[in-house]
Amino acid sequence: MIGVDWGSSSFRAYRIGPDGRVLDRREADCGIIDIGAADYPAALRQRIGDWLAVDSGPVLLSGMVGSRQGWREAPYAECPADLNDLADALCRVDIGAGRIGHIVPGLSCRDADGVPDVMRGEETQLFGLDMPAGDGMAVMPGTHSKHVRFQNGRVVSFATAMTGEVFALLSRHGLIAAMLPKDEAEFEETAFCDGLAASGRPGGLLHHLFGVRTRRLFDELAAMAARDFLSGLLIGHELRGTEWRGEVRIIAGQKLATRYLKACGWLGIPAALAPEDAAARGLYRLSRHLRG
Amino acid sequence: MIGVDWGSSSFRAYRIGPDGRVLDRREADCGIIDIGAADYPAALRQRIGDWLAVDSGPVLLSGMVGSRQGWREAPYAECPADLNDLADALCRVDIGAGRIGHIVPGLSCRDADGVPDVMRGEETQLFGLDMPAGDGMAVMPGTHSKHVRFQNGRVVSFATAMTGEVFALLSRHGLIAAMLPKDEAEFEETAFCDGLAASGRPGGLLHHLFGVRTRRLFDELAAMAARDFLSGLLIGHELRGTEWRGEVRIIAGQKLATRYLKACGWLGIPAALAPEDAAARGLYRLSRHLRG
Repeated sequence: MIGVDWGSSSFRAYRIGPDGRVLDRREADCGIIDIGAADYPAALRQRIGDWLAVDSGPVLLSGMVGSRQGWREAPYAECPADLNDLADALCRVDIGAGRIGHIVPGLSCRDADGVPDVMRGEETQLFGLDMPAGDGMAVMPGTHSKHVRFQNGRVVSFATAMTGEVFALLSRHGLIAAMLPKDEAEFEETAFCDGLAASGRPGGLLHHLFGVRTRRLFDELAAMAARDFLSGLLIGHELRGTEWRGEVRIIAGQKLATRYLKACGWLGIPAALAPEDAAARGLYRLSRHLRG
Repeated sequence: MIGVDWGSSSFRAYRIGPDGRVLDRREADCGIIDIGAADYPAALRQRIGDWLAVDSGPVLLSGMVGSRQGWREAPYAECPADLNDLADALCRVDIGAGRIGHIVPGLSCRDADGVPDVMRGEETQLFGLDMPAGDGMAVMPGTHSKHVRFQNGRVVSFATAMTGEVFALLSRHGLIAAMLPKDEAEFEETAFCDGLAASGRPGGLLHHLFGVRTRRLFDELAAMAARDFLSGLLIGHELRGTEWRGEVRIIAGQKLATRYLKACGWLGIPAALAPEDAAARGLYRLSRHLRG
């Protein structure tokens, strides 16, 4: 089978054998923000036309390619949801040459107050995890960080925190950005942990942010350490917002994995890194649940 | 006497009689970000040269004019501080024609954990209040909102929240900004109060911000109401960060005063608007404490 993880700014394709082994992989900078609606089949063939010529198995696509701004909108499946629910909600698209592709839907849920939340792309990574038999949780850091609760193979609920986006905004614009050095430095672990500590003090995030400024003003925080202090402050606020239960899997690339492992350790949240290629494994597992 | 409230982007001057009555006032768009260091005396004479020619009383200047980026840095006076402490820390500058001006210092304090905080300009407004005999508090909304505690005429401590700046960043850049209508609408009180309510739910600010997006996505928040929902969410988080005691004075212009009065009422914080012209009254009172 062929699986594609097609996001706003990235394209990752996997060719996967019948046993689930990844035979080949390909990455490209052709996110959906770069593509006009009509060009999806062409863009797909341009990247993996040679695979499609020799592999007649299912083609699954996940990520923002299934959003309103993507190839075709695949409506959110509602939580609680398992692999079968997701497979039932796959959305068919014509990928040319008489073949059909399947777009993976995102997931939606509502919290105790009825406030909706959504994910798109992360659900495929989640189902690539070996979920524990009973209760478990996962954290998927990023622009919009996801905290996920699962139970007996179902995604029960989740909550999104805008940590990455707020970090980017504060690093680029305004008072704090003006104090940060332009170049990214080595990871300053002490400053990061000071930020984690600051996130637990009274006053709330809007107050704590001003502390980045005043610490610099009084030379109590080095310029090179300010970015990691801010990172620790925001990640601390994010993680303290959720009631963690049991073992937590962290699904992240190298850089964020280091920070979130450190932060979970510091906050006393038992956490471990998830194996890599969760997206490829999720796409493969979904292909085994295809109906008809 | 002549008092000038000279901020980053604004210039407000008051000519005040010996009884404290404001005889004349003048505003100009010539904040300190528009002025080169050497041009301060000229800029001052250009705006109020006619007053200086006829009024030989003290000239006091407050606000960012006393910052490192201003005319001359007037080092922060430390809390607790009263009018005498502030008068003792005034910083003299040559305003030309053989006359001296007095720059009002900002205030600094440290919280229970030793984290520093600062204000510059707001201290002058504070001392323009009729402070209660015992304990009292004030909130000074804005780009960097100040929560102030005073006791027997002294400013005891304060805390800054970056509410206004974070609101501006989120309204201009990123995911939430993309959903807001360009034009500002009428004040949507219901949406504002929904935002206040959302600020008290579990999950923290970084999670609540994503709720602005999902409510729009599911059509549970009107586009025209999203800005005031966001405003209520941020002001709610700001006000919940402080332990309020006793009667709270709100020192703000019309637009923010409406929002903070509403928010305090909604959150059960007993609050009242401070009289206008607090800055002018603070400058006048300081001039009465001038030494030598």
